[in-house]
Amino acid sequence: MPRNQQIHLNNRPDGEAVASNFKLVASETPPLQDGQVLVRHHFLSLDPYMRGRMNDAKSYAMPQALGETMGGGTVGEVVESKNERFAVGDKVVGMGGWQEYSVVDANQVGALRKVDTTHVPLSAYLGAVGMPGVTAWYGLVKIIAPQAGDTMVISAATGAVGSAFAALSKARGCHTVGIAGGPKKCKYAVEELGYDACIDYKTHTDAASLAKALKDACPKGIDGYFENVGGMVLDAVLTRMNAFGRIAVCGMIAGYDGAPLPLTYPALILVNRLKVQGFIVSEHMEIWPEALKELGTQVATGKLKPRESIALGIKAAPEAFLGLLKGRNFGKQLVKLV
Amino acid sequence: MPRNQQIHLNNRPDGEAVASNFKLVASETPPLQDGQVLVRHHFLSLDPYMRGRMNDAKSYAMPQALGETMGGGTVGEVVESKNERFAVGDKVVGMGGWQEYSVVDANQVGALRKVDTTHVPLSAYLGAVGMPGVTAWYGLVKIIAPQAGDTMVISAATGAVGSAFAALSKARGCHTVGIAGGPKKCKYAVEELGYDACIDYKTHTDAASLAKALKDACPKGIDGYFENVGGMVLDAVLTRMNAFGRIAVCGMIAGYDGAPLPLTYPALILVNRLKVQGFIVSEHMEIWPEALKELGTQVATGKLKPRESIALGIKAAPEAFLGLLKGRNFGKQLVKLV
Repeated sequence: MPRNQQIHLNNRPDGEAVASNFKLVASETPPLQDGQVLVRHHFLSLDPYMRGRMNDAKSYAMPQALGETMGGGTVGEVVESKNERFAVGDKVVGMGGWQEYSVVDANQVGALRKVDTTHVPLSAYLGAVGMPGVTAWYGLVKIIAPQAGDTMVISAATGAVGSAFAALSKARGCHTVGIAGGPKKCKYAVEELGYDACIDYKTHTDAASLAKALKDACPKGIDGYFENVGGMVLDAVLTRMNAFGRIAVCGMIAGYDGAPLPLTYPALILVNRLKVQGFIVSEHMEIWPEALKELGTQVATGKLKPRESIALGIKAAPEAFLGLLKGRNFGKQLVKLV
Repeated sequence: MPRNQQIHLNNRPDGEAVASNFKLVASETPPLQDGQVLVRHHFLSLDPYMRGRMNDAKSYAMPQALGETMGGGTVGEVVESKNERFAVGDKVVGMGGWQEYSVVDANQVGALRKVDTTHVPLSAYLGAVGMPGVTAWYGLVKIIAPQAGDTMVISAATGAVGSAFAALSKARGCHTVGIAGGPKKCKYAVEELGYDACIDYKTHTDAASLAKALKDACPKGIDGYFENVGGMVLDAVLTRMNAFGRIAVCGMIAGYDGAPLPLTYPALILVNRLKVQGFIVSEHMEIWPEALKELGTQVATGKLKPRESIALGIKAAPEAFLGLLKGRNFGKQLVKLV
């Protein structure tokens, strides 16, 4: 029964999320019941959707309960098992949450999945070959459904979803343009991730200015847009969409802190006959095997080399998460626990 | 060469459209060339999309040219023909515009179509069995794609599109709720058009109040919404959409006069995993035969009995059109010319 440190949600944000919303709690892991395994987490995934769950509002996910361990994806190693499908030493991916260990009822469908780390590093199963990668795949392949030669745009271009999106979009012969914050990220997007161009939204103070930059980077207009941020960026992209364009709405991080961000000119959906579709990748489990196969191959062959921002130790999780919400991370944000 | 009275667009609106944007012009119809026919218009259709074309802005349709006859759908009778496919006396539907006669190059695909008035009145080919009916059909069948038992909502519920939508939606076993302006229209929607309920948006001053009324009228939430107006109504509907709901965006009439109406909370597209899709029915000619067949049968069998608002004489067209934009019409707005 190892000592386990956890991060609980202690209170809900009033506007911006802050460190004091979280609380470090120490406990011991309970003895295993039949069918359960004890997983020691190597990495914890930090993702923007977690901010939404901190609010007590109607959303697609149940709100995060107060006084309980923050939910989240984890990869780790089985250190004790009362389940014949899992042996000590197995590398596994699951939803262990913001803690060092988790006890998992491994007979529950989808609760725990063994992974192969021969060609793919363990941490990648939280990023390019995990939920963020599949998110990029679903939005691109199932909602945007591009043709070779189409122009694709994505916001939060250098994050875990964006990195995978660039590789998948280029593999389909699309002109692929990122939007990211700051010259470093934009340089990385073009030089390492394969974007044809990347726009630094921080150099634009209004949607009209950003729209002009999009016009230069996308001379044939925009056929598909993968939306992670909302607000000014969405306003600008909408003005540059081609007729019959598709927008996959994955996140609107710009509006997560309090006041909702309006969409200035929704009539453009009609004017340009757009399809705008929201989705949550966990509701489309049927496509995960196909998506993971392509993403795993991309990583194993070195075509997709996503960067990781790694915070050390469970205590560092809250600050790393708040940094993620402000775009301070560079690539997939992880917390290393071992 | 009969004397022909036409309404031209004389200047563009600065904000609200006004009567002085239009000008009555008299001319003579030119002699027919080979392949042409002369049509005497019996009815002219007035439709909200025409307001969009009065602006000189990027939109799906070319702006209406200044100093030329306003475009628009017409039904009438062939009075002279130099085309072997059309004989004097044929009843025809076309895009003759705001005038008493038109000369049509009848060999052009889609320019002129003969119609049968045995069971369907001629004017219905501008409404339920014409562009507005097919618009309702496309949005419902191809974008919303309802299951029996789903809840459908439509704004501008008693107009030409709404009337057809109600009949098509009820025929598919859907709980069907309209939104219209004023108690007369709401009574008519329920008693004559077959809506299960109709909400008078004029009794609500904000989206929250309208959302509450929608909650009462749609106890199982909203699965499909046919958008004709935008603004407060769209804001309210978005809060009541079920997961995986579909919104067909056909018009946003509330924003046609100047300042665009924002969408207050676009993140609901993600929260509720909605599909929001704009469309223009003239771009989907392949579905017209199937749609017209169902709509024609609905009218011929008396299941769809749309009301018409009829203005008399070409000179009455501008005022009737401005009234349509303000919702003063009751059912399909026509101008009777014969």
